[in-house]
Amino acid sequence: MERFTAYIDSQRSRFLAELADIIRIPSVAAQNRGIEETATFVEQRFRRLGAETRILQADGGNPLVYATIGRGSRTLLIYDHYDVQPAEPLELWQSPPFELTERNGKLYGRGVADNKGNLMLRIQAIEAWLATEGELPIRIIFAVEGEEEVSSRTLPAVCREYADLLRADGCLWETGGVDLGERPVVTCGAKGIQYVELIARGARHDLHSSYATFVPNPAWRLIWALNTLKGPDGRVRIPGFYDRVRQPSDSDLAALASIPADDDDALLANLGLSDFLDGVRGVERLRRHLFEPTCTICGLVSGYTGKGSKTVLPNKARAKIDFRLVPDMEPAEVLQQLRQHLDAEGFQDIEIVDLGGEHPARGPLDATIVRAALDSAREVYGCEPILYPTMAGTGPMYPLCTALGTPVASGAGCGYYSSRVHSPNENIRIVDYWRAMQWMGSLIRHFAG
Amino acid sequence: MERFTAYIDSQRSRFLAELADIIRIPSVAAQNRGIEETATFVEQRFRRLGAETRILQADGGNPLVYATIGRGSRTLLIYDHYDVQPAEPLELWQSPPFELTERNGKLYGRGVADNKGNLMLRIQAIEAWLATEGELPIRIIFAVEGEEEVSSRTLPAVCREYADLLRADGCLWETGGVDLGERPVVTCGAKGIQYVELIARGARHDLHSSYATFVPNPAWRLIWALNTLKGPDGRVRIPGFYDRVRQPSDSDLAALASIPADDDDALLANLGLSDFLDGVRGVERLRRHLFEPTCTICGLVSGYTGKGSKTVLPNKARAKIDFRLVPDMEPAEVLQQLRQHLDAEGFQDIEIVDLGGEHPARGPLDATIVRAALDSAREVYGCEPILYPTMAGTGPMYPLCTALGTPVASGAGCGYYSSRVHSPNENIRIVDYWRAMQWMGSLIRHFAG
Repeated sequence: MERFTAYIDSQRSRFLAELADIIRIPSVAAQNRGIEETATFVEQRFRRLGAETRILQADGGNPLVYATIGRGSRTLLIYDHYDVQPAEPLELWQSPPFELTERNGKLYGRGVADNKGNLMLRIQAIEAWLATEGELPIRIIFAVEGEEEVSSRTLPAVCREYADLLRADGCLWETGGVDLGERPVVTCGAKGIQYVELIARGARHDLHSSYATFVPNPAWRLIWALNTLKGPDGRVRIPGFYDRVRQPSDSDLAALASIPADDDDALLANLGLSDFLDGVRGVERLRRHLFEPTCTICGLVSGYTGKGSKTVLPNKARAKIDFRLVPDMEPAEVLQQLRQHLDAEGFQDIEIVDLGGEHPARGPLDATIVRAALDSAREVYGCEPILYPTMAGTGPMYPLCTALGTPVASGAGCGYYSSRVHSPNENIRIVDYWRAMQWMGSLIRHFAG
Repeated sequence: MERFTAYIDSQRSRFLAELADIIRIPSVAAQNRGIEETATFVEQRFRRLGAETRILQADGGNPLVYATIGRGSRTLLIYDHYDVQPAEPLELWQSPPFELTERNGKLYGRGVADNKGNLMLRIQAIEAWLATEGELPIRIIFAVEGEEEVSSRTLPAVCREYADLLRADGCLWETGGVDLGERPVVTCGAKGIQYVELIARGARHDLHSSYATFVPNPAWRLIWALNTLKGPDGRVRIPGFYDRVRQPSDSDLAALASIPADDDDALLANLGLSDFLDGVRGVERLRRHLFEPTCTICGLVSGYTGKGSKTVLPNKARAKIDFRLVPDMEPAEVLQQLRQHLDAEGFQDIEIVDLGGEHPARGPLDATIVRAALDSAREVYGCEPILYPTMAGTGPMYPLCTALGTPVASGAGCGYYSSRVHSPNENIRIVDYWRAMQWMGSLIRHFAG
């Protein structure tokens, strides 16, 4: 594939300009910005590649850009998303979040790692293949959605309605990259999620705080309610929460044992921490990370949050919480358990707003797509890739893969251990972008068999 | 005093224009805005009245405008402040907070009730006296500070340094107005305060929330720490917190018994509540309100607080808390108890920022200034005024009165039950402004004896 590599080298500046173009559109699904414009951008890019495209939609959700290209006995589904997380807090960015900026061999911008970088490099790899190797040896389907960062609200409905269009022999997941030891990573599962906002309400308006002797304070109500969800021991106290947690299989545990777990100190230094939660380290930290559910406060707000003091009794308090779920937990059931728990603890007054749920998924570790991802990684990176039975993050793997019987693997991506996805100064290393493009080319060849 | 009344009637539009002028300067002490400008405005107004003025300052604090006018055997100290609370949240104001706006017989603006309205109407009453009654029968001292809304940071030092300038036979406190039954209110004490910000810290930056399996979440740390401060029973759990609480005296209890306590339902309707905390009503609600200390969350913030969902693990969480103190609690001791308590509960990692403290105060109920405030209220309002042994709010009564042996009473003010002090849409009723000016004139006469 020397010509493939030479072609990429010759197109570097154009490829990065394309990446800058898609970063520039602030497609923040949570804020409903730039969605149509980005979907159009993606569809037009597929057309320039020579793909057939169509827009799939359900329940008024954001458009999913669907594209097919190539022919062969095997079909590869590639899942990516064009929406991004909010860029806030803006003041912590060292360069404008929607302006792709190069500094010290890195590219900064919201979505450059999650997931616009992978989307563009995979398209560009196929362009390089077509320009140098000729016809694709497989059929490739792209499913590029616009609601990944808001729990893929309507993707399950799209998958049900267009199941026949989405069936494949394997799915390449959106994520991919290298770990702290610079080893390429392949994962075969994802956690699920249930995201909620809890709202406590008090008087009609904020009051002078001297009223606190007899007027209920929603901030305290919220604190007490949250305290019943999880205590300092980290254990979620909602009855039934752990009932459906599937224990890792023998092959899960074998894969876990083969994951290097010697990077605790480097990770601690990177995060600026002296210790992990409960002092966990090594394999135990990884086991928790992959196989345990969580209950996380993502946001809190009430009353006066500005500079100095304001003696106010707030009339509202809100908390944003995500529950990361492992197989075989059910998002809807967690929502129901949460309501029952709050009621039982005397917090009937706390409103729960459902901000979306997704099923967890865990696929087979010996499928063709998994082997292709591992073999191509080994070839391009010249070292043994790491196989994770699941990632700790969430994605709509269940409706897109598990429900359709499609094995799945991540890979061919430009992420690394300091990508800061979902944070200010999200970035990739430029060298990873070109390597991941090679990985994609090699993966196509290995998947063709 | 018919000429006094006629003079006020003839000056109404000028007096309200003056009030609008001082409201226009956004003297938010917490944000360090408009302080010098407002102090200058106040000093110039005193000079136009014919008073001698000087600026008192200590420890680099905001200027206190000091003014003396008149001669007589008795000296009345009038305490007011020209600083105001922050106007946030701005989006809840129906008209710009620093633009005095008339709607339905009310005047809206930040500080119109607390405390620029009372300051201006007292000055204007003295102008009316001088224009119609001639010389003042008493000596009046004004002490108008600029840090009341930030716990009167440097006032205690000013009071120590300039004690000789501030001694008086009685002090008219900043507050005054009518209750829900339209009865004028006189109070002789104030709660103290200790305001703190609690800060919990996590990783170097926000993280993708999947890290929650092993990275400490400062939002949870803060929740658990706050939960140890006060539980759903409302009892503050900090050891020693209640040790110094002085029980109400017989005369306190006699005054409490004479306060009408039949306005529960009207107050509930006004606040949009179905019930008070723990269902308290009537005299028991009043007893708590006046004689019990509090621990109030005034603000909470962590992570993502915008629209929709963002799956982020925050790296910082903050809570603003005020403790309202009753005699003989000591702010510095409460701060120390809080630190010891958090340490003992395992929260050494939570930082406490001291945002200011003030001593509680409770003066004699039978002093000349108290009788003058009551008699003048009776005369102007034509009904029996209500005597409160203390207010539930806070002010620097301790350094200005208690420490100097000066009895104190509130009164001659334009507040009412829906003034929304410290809240959006702070307002007074215009009719109350003119009545309070009458009250001030009558109070001068009664205090002269």
